[in-house]
Amino acid sequence: MNFGPPAFVQEAAKHAIDQVESNQYSHPRGRIRLRNALAASYSPEFGRELNPETEIIVTAGANEAIFATFAGFLDEGSEVICMEPFFDQYIPNITMNGGKPVYVPLRAPADSSERTVSSHEWRLDIDELRSKITSKTKIIIINTPHNPIGKVFDEEELMAIGKVAEEHDLIILTDEVYDRLYYPPLKKFPRIASLANFWERTITVGSGGKSFAATGWRVGWLIGPEHLVKYSFAAQTRVVFCVNSPCQEAIAAGLEASLVKPIFQEQTDEYLKKRGILSAVFDKLKLPYTVPEGAYFILVNTAKISYPKDYKFPELLDSRGEDFKMCYWLTKEIGVCSIPPSEFYVKEHWPLAKDFARFAFCKTDDVLNEAVKRLEKLEQYIKK
Amino acid sequence: MNFGPPAFVQEAAKHAIDQVESNQYSHPRGRIRLRNALAASYSPEFGRELNPETEIIVTAGANEAIFATFAGFLDEGSEVICMEPFFDQYIPNITMNGGKPVYVPLRAPADSSERTVSSHEWRLDIDELRSKITSKTKIIIINTPHNPIGKVFDEEELMAIGKVAEEHDLIILTDEVYDRLYYPPLKKFPRIASLANFWERTITVGSGGKSFAATGWRVGWLIGPEHLVKYSFAAQTRVVFCVNSPCQEAIAAGLEASLVKPIFQEQTDEYLKKRGILSAVFDKLKLPYTVPEGAYFILVNTAKISYPKDYKFPELLDSRGEDFKMCYWLTKEIGVCSIPPSEFYVKEHWPLAKDFARFAFCKTDDVLNEAVKRLEKLEQYIKK
Repeated sequence: MNFGPPAFVQEAAKHAIDQVESNQYSHPRGRIRLRNALAASYSPEFGRELNPETEIIVTAGANEAIFATFAGFLDEGSEVICMEPFFDQYIPNITMNGGKPVYVPLRAPADSSERTVSSHEWRLDIDELRSKITSKTKIIIINTPHNPIGKVFDEEELMAIGKVAEEHDLIILTDEVYDRLYYPPLKKFPRIASLANFWERTITVGSGGKSFAATGWRVGWLIGPEHLVKYSFAAQTRVVFCVNSPCQEAIAAGLEASLVKPIFQEQTDEYLKKRGILSAVFDKLKLPYTVPEGAYFILVNTAKISYPKDYKFPELLDSRGEDFKMCYWLTKEIGVCSIPPSEFYVKEHWPLAKDFARFAFCKTDDVLNEAVKRLEKLEQYIKK
Repeated sequence: MNFGPPAFVQEAAKHAIDQVESNQYSHPRGRIRLRNALAASYSPEFGRELNPETEIIVTAGANEAIFATFAGFLDEGSEVICMEPFFDQYIPNITMNGGKPVYVPLRAPADSSERTVSSHEWRLDIDELRSKITSKTKIIIINTPHNPIGKVFDEEELMAIGKVAEEHDLIILTDEVYDRLYYPPLKKFPRIASLANFWERTITVGSGGKSFAATGWRVGWLIGPEHLVKYSFAAQTRVVFCVNSPCQEAIAAGLEASLVKPIFQEQTDEYLKKRGILSAVFDKLKLPYTVPEGAYFILVNTAKISYPKDYKFPELLDSRGEDFKMCYWLTKEIGVCSIPPSEFYVKEHWPLAKDFARFAFCKTDDVLNEAVKRLEKLEQYIKK
């Protein structure tokens, strides 16, 4: 993001810096003000009264929440089901803790190279998911809204996943860091922890940085039943001991405000406008893309773009997915940077990502408008 | 600590909060301003020009620096030599990463229950250290100034440890979080990384929280040769990704100021006065203690204190070291809290800690004076 947190959240951080106690160690579970604010904000979301003493742990960013959960649960050889494409940190977070990632694909519609699709059209095959489960499977990790696709799993999909978890007594780890950022026509963000009896087996991960435009604050959280989160907590106490204190106070202030003012709705409106600015240029260029239901990424199909055949790439790129070349060329020659999505696939599946680039619209409108202007230069490189 | 960071460091944090970029992700190695400030501050300390691009990693507190280093180096069954008493986090940091702690004692002088001693009189037996090394030993961890003893290892001791590490090709991990806090007559803080050729095998850990009275900021660092710190860095990138951005800027401002103003000297003078306030009451009570050469703890021998024989302790304490009872009683009946040092020993060695309590003097003078007043009530419980 090239914009900062809401002004009142910045003020709350500065106020916290001025107090003695909010510069010193916090409780390893998180500061009580933040845990109370999380309980107040998320209890209606989960449809249950959350206990801030036992069901909420503040973490050093969502990343560390996920690391600590794998550290708390995985034994040598434990398997974790990951949907591919996956957020890249999951894999080392699993393997560093002795686990083994097992992949099940999210598939784009067959004609997604010819037309713009909704992220909802990317589908998980439940039978395929079920086929990946062994006696060593311990956790299914879900990411919704999904990075890089933008897919928001609907209740029906979540019910199906939850039932598989129930059948095999698996833990569900759901990475919902973009939970405050989903777009119309969605009216409500579906949470697997609030469906059926899945609460009992689900740990939900959230992010203060994503919710309040402060990715550098490293304040995240996890929410779940005490009998699960106590293991994540035990690990986290040893990994980082506790989390940055003044920024916890500021995120608490942000959540408190969200209870009485529609700040998340306003933020979503802003992002929706940004999505519109960026996607318009891909429409204009007739480049098919995935319209995200949530988060702030657009996955663009770049197959129609031909960069000059004799273009000189650094040798380093020869050992990466083909999409690295496209993203490199776009950065160097068009002046717009994107992420090559093969980063979100295992090596043998890199070819699946070869025609994609992930663009982010978490930028001020002027930067987005400048990006659009530059991307318009692509016209001449597009095969008709 | 019940006081905050220096006012100008607080101002720097607030200034950082006001900038867009210092609220967003930092480079996983740490913000360049902080790495440059660390290089400027520590190059003279290490007697070499430190490269901020390759030899310095900013971490989510010193704790995470140590966790990430074990994550980076230990294989299943790797052994780590720990001096006992040890800072309690080391042990799970080792075992969570598949390693096995191996203990070698720091021994108090035989008559330390009868007289006040210097922390320097606690000794490591180098032959005993050598006897603990096996083919699986990978790392020796040093803590200087030592928590809870306050010992500052001198050059001769560090040379001896370093030679053992050289003989067996071991990595030295030196936890120097209290490096800015050592007391006269010490004129210089000895660093093993600056002796002989030990730099090549040493990772040094430091703490912004300890150096600038901001333990809740979770900004630490590690310094060492690229061929070592790259492994800690690889792990840290996956464990926390990056470190709180605004507080990195503020710690940078603190270090920059320390280059032109004697702020660490002034801080040491303050702490020396605090040490004096607290130790005076133990002198008065004729309770022997260890005078710390560094850090802010006083290890007091409590053998002469007899609490009432029929005092009712919670059952929970029956499963802990004997020192927990003394510390509990002191807290409840005298109104001064201390840490039972059996926390820093393995269970079979808890009896070694039974006559000790660790008092901290990182408190404002008024709190210390009040503690002294309360501790004076101990007079009636002391065996003559």
